[in-house]
Amino acid sequence: MGPEEFRRAGHELVDWVADYRLGVRDLPVRAQVSPGDVLSALAPVPPESPEPLAALIADLDQVIVPGLTHTQHPGNFAWFPSNASLSSVLGDIVAGGLGALGLSWQSAPALTELEQVVCDWARQLCGLSAGWKGTITDGASTACFVALLVARERATDGCQRRGGLQAEPSPLTVYCSAEAHSSVVKAVLLAGYGADNLRPVPVRRPGREMDVAALDALMTADVAGGRRPAAVVATSGTTATTAFDPLADVCAVAQSHGAVVHVDAAMAGSAMLLPEHRGLFDGIEGATSLSWNPHKWLGSVLETSLFYVQDPGPLVSVMATDPSYLRSARDGSVVQYRDWGLPLGRRFRALRLWSLLRLEGAEAIRARLRRDLANAQRLATLVEQAPGWQLVAPVRLQTVCVLHVPEGPEGPDLDAHTLKWCEAVNASGAAHLTPAVVDDRWVVRISIGSETTEWSDVEAMWRLVERVAASS
Amino acid sequence: MGPEEFRRAGHELVDWVADYRLGVRDLPVRAQVSPGDVLSALAPVPPESPEPLAALIADLDQVIVPGLTHTQHPGNFAWFPSNASLSSVLGDIVAGGLGALGLSWQSAPALTELEQVVCDWARQLCGLSAGWKGTITDGASTACFVALLVARERATDGCQRRGGLQAEPSPLTVYCSAEAHSSVVKAVLLAGYGADNLRPVPVRRPGREMDVAALDALMTADVAGGRRPAAVVATSGTTATTAFDPLADVCAVAQSHGAVVHVDAAMAGSAMLLPEHRGLFDGIEGATSLSWNPHKWLGSVLETSLFYVQDPGPLVSVMATDPSYLRSARDGSVVQYRDWGLPLGRRFRALRLWSLLRLEGAEAIRARLRRDLANAQRLATLVEQAPGWQLVAPVRLQTVCVLHVPEGPEGPDLDAHTLKWCEAVNASGAAHLTPAVVDDRWVVRISIGSETTEWSDVEAMWRLVERVAASS
Repeated sequence: MGPEEFRRAGHELVDWVADYRLGVRDLPVRAQVSPGDVLSALAPVPPESPEPLAALIADLDQVIVPGLTHTQHPGNFAWFPSNASLSSVLGDIVAGGLGALGLSWQSAPALTELEQVVCDWARQLCGLSAGWKGTITDGASTACFVALLVARERATDGCQRRGGLQAEPSPLTVYCSAEAHSSVVKAVLLAGYGADNLRPVPVRRPGREMDVAALDALMTADVAGGRRPAAVVATSGTTATTAFDPLADVCAVAQSHGAVVHVDAAMAGSAMLLPEHRGLFDGIEGATSLSWNPHKWLGSVLETSLFYVQDPGPLVSVMATDPSYLRSARDGSVVQYRDWGLPLGRRFRALRLWSLLRLEGAEAIRARLRRDLANAQRLATLVEQAPGWQLVAPVRLQTVCVLHVPEGPEGPDLDAHTLKWCEAVNASGAAHLTPAVVDDRWVVRISIGSETTEWSDVEAMWRLVERVAASS
Repeated sequence: MGPEEFRRAGHELVDWVADYRLGVRDLPVRAQVSPGDVLSALAPVPPESPEPLAALIADLDQVIVPGLTHTQHPGNFAWFPSNASLSSVLGDIVAGGLGALGLSWQSAPALTELEQVVCDWARQLCGLSAGWKGTITDGASTACFVALLVARERATDGCQRRGGLQAEPSPLTVYCSAEAHSSVVKAVLLAGYGADNLRPVPVRRPGREMDVAALDALMTADVAGGRRPAAVVATSGTTATTAFDPLADVCAVAQSHGAVVHVDAAMAGSAMLLPEHRGLFDGIEGATSLSWNPHKWLGSVLETSLFYVQDPGPLVSVMATDPSYLRSARDGSVVQYRDWGLPLGRRFRALRLWSLLRLEGAEAIRARLRRDLANAQRLATLVEQAPGWQLVAPVRLQTVCVLHVPEGPEGPDLDAHTLKWCEAVNASGAAHLTPAVVDDRWVVRISIGSETTEWSDVEAMWRLVERVAASS
C-alpha cells in the first residue's frame, strides 16, 4: 500500500475509531457472543487478491465490535481500568508509521533515548528518586519474571554462565503475599525455582497486607534449613482488594536475609502520581526493582509497562548478548535496551506514553485519577448504607469489593447468590463487574477508573446492582 | 482527549505518516546523531498542562526523525527487512482505537478468535499441515525462550510444580547450530540450563548448516555421560548467512535421543509462502514448535511473531494460571491465549496481520518476496563478476554476504578494511549495511527486502559499495 492510499484509508479508520468511541456507551459492555461465533463469521482462507477497505470495515462493524467486551465503555468496572486514551493512540500511529526497529541504540537512537526520557518523566511524576532507571516492557508479568531471573542469578553468583540452576546445591526460595497476583506464581515456576520453594506469606486483617512477622519467620526457617532466600515480591495494590504490602518493613526483613525486593504495582502504580497517596508506597526506595503499568489506569494503550531498577548492572549482566551483527562504534556510551529484557527487536513504545503525557498534561491526568478515587469513596458510602451489603475490604484506591448478604444463604449458597447476581448484571450489558475469591468466599470487585466513567455512571451501575441482587 | 479532537489530530498524524513515507528516500538511512543528541533536545520534565499537537509534531520533525535509522528506506540493507507495511499500520490503528484487553477469551472474544483465524491463515500460506496451532508473540526470542521452558518441563516431567530445576539430578542439555541466533543462547541461559549444558553444533561448509552427524555424536556422548538431551533448536535461515539446518535429519536425530525440536525461522519463515522454496524447510512437520516473524520480511508492524506448536497441551500445562478473577463460564470451551505465553494482558495484535493480508492479498506479497529473491540473485551475479569481490556464502534467500579482498591486507588488516568501507557506505547516508563475523572474519551482509527497495536501489547501492571499497 502506497502513502497516498494509506492517507485515504487512514483518515477513514481514524473516523471509524472516533465514531466507535462516540458510540461505545450504547453497546453492551460485555460481549454477547458465544465461543466460535466470531471464528465462524470470518473467512477461513486468506485472500489471494487485495480486498477493499470497505470489506474490512464491514467485518469490523458486523463481527469484531459485537465480538468484543468494551473496555473503553463507561460501564466497564471489570478486572481493572485498561484505558487506551486517544492521545496515546496517536503516538502509536506515529510508531507504526515510522516503523523504527529497536535492536540497538544504533538501529534507532531516538527510540532508545525517548524511552529514557519518558521513563524518567514517569519517575518524576511518581516522586521516585533519580536513582531509578526505567525501561518499557509489555506487562507486569514479564517484569516480575525478569526480576526473578535476575534474583536467581544474583543468589547463585551467575549460575547461568556455568552449570545452570541444576548445579546449585542450596534451594533458592521466593516469598510473596498469599494474595499476590497469579503472574508472580507463574514467574517463580518459569524461572525454575519450583513450586515447593515459593512461600505465600499470610496477610493481616482487615487490610490484607503481607504479615511481615510471618515473612521474617519463613525466611529465618528457610535459612536455618539450608535454603537461600533469593527474592521477595511485594505487592502494592493486590488484584482482589488493592491491599498494600508494607514496603519499608518488607525491604528491611528481606535485606536482613540477603534477598532482593521486587515491587509489583501493576495497577496501583498510577496512584504514585498523587502526592497524597504516596504514603501507600512508603519504603519503596529500599526495593531493588519496581514495575507498574501505564496501560492500566493511567491511559496508555496496552503493552506499555514500566520496569525500573535501582542498578541496571545486575539486570544487564543477566540479559546481555553481544552478537557481532549488532555491534557498533557506539556500544560503550549508550543504553542498549535489548539487554534490559527478553525481546531483541523492539517497537517504538515510548511514543505512546510521550503523546499521552504531552497532549493530556500531568494536571489533567491527576484530576482524572482523583475523580475516580472520589467516586470509589462515594460508592463505598452507598454500600455501607445499603441494608444487606458489606464492604469486603478497606477501599484504598478505586476498587470497591462488595458482598450482598441477604437473609438465608450461607456458605456455598451465598457464593451461588453472588455469582448469580453478578452474572445477571453482566448479562444486562449495562455494566461489567468481575467476581473474585477472598477468604474462600466469592465477592464482587467493582473497579472504577475507565476514562469515560463519571459519577453518574457509577451511580447507575450501583442502582442496577442493588436491584438485580435483590431479585436474584 | 475526546473523539472529535482525536479525529482532527488523527487525520493530521496520518498525513504526517504518509508524508514521512513519501519523503523517506531523501533522508540519510542511518541516523546521523551522536549519543545524547536526542535526549538533550527533549524536555527533561513532563508538562503539567496539555501541549498542542503542533508541539509534538515539531519535535517529531526536528528531533525524532533525524534521530532515527530509517528501516522503511529503499537504501536499507541492514540487519534484516523490518517492513511496517502501511496496510498493517491500519490494523494497528484499529487495535489502539478499540482498546480491547486480551486477558481471557471472555475479556475480548474477537481478539482471541481473530488470532486463531490469522494464525491459521498464515499456516495455510506457509503450506504447513493443519496440526499446527499458533499464537502471536512479540518476537522469536520470546518464542524460543518459551519453547525451551516447555522442553525443560517435559524433560523433567514438570519440575516447576515440585522442587524446580535444582532438584533434578541429571543435567539437561540443549543443542543448536554454532551459527544460531544469539537469542537461542540467551534463552538457554535464562531458562536455567546453564552455559555448560549448551552444545553449539559445528556447521558444514559451504552451506553452513548444522552438521547432523556432529549433533548425533554430541547427543550420544551426553546420554552416555548421564545427561538428558532436552531440546534441539534448529535454525531455518541463520542471521549471518541465511543457512538452513536440515530439519528432517535434525528431527530424526533429536527424536532418537528423546529431545524436542524448536525451529527458529524468524527471518526466513516468510519464504515458506513460496512453494518453490519450501524445500529449504523439508522435514519441518517433525518439529515440536516453530516460530517466524511476519514483522520482518512479510510486512507486519513490529511485535508480530508467530509461534506454532503441534500440540498445545504441554505448552498450556507449563504456562497456565487460573486465578479466580479470570474465571468465567466459558473457560472449558475456548482458547485462553494467556496460557500460551508469558504475558497476561494482551493487545489486539491479530488486526495488524489481518489488515496486511486482506488489503495486500497473498499474491502481491508473494510477488514482492520473489522480487527481492531475484534482486539478491542479480546482485550475487554482479559480486561474482567483480574483481576482488567474494561471495562468502551461498545466496539462499535475500541476504548476500560479501567480502572485498584487495591486494595487500590479510587477517586483521582485512577486517579493518572491511569495517572501514562498510562504515563509509553507512556514513554516506545512501545505504545501510551491517557487518558480521563469519569464520572469525568480518564480512558484510547485504540484506535485501525493504518493501520500497527495487532493483535500481540495489544496483545504486552496489555501485556505491564498489566505489567506496576501492578507495578505502
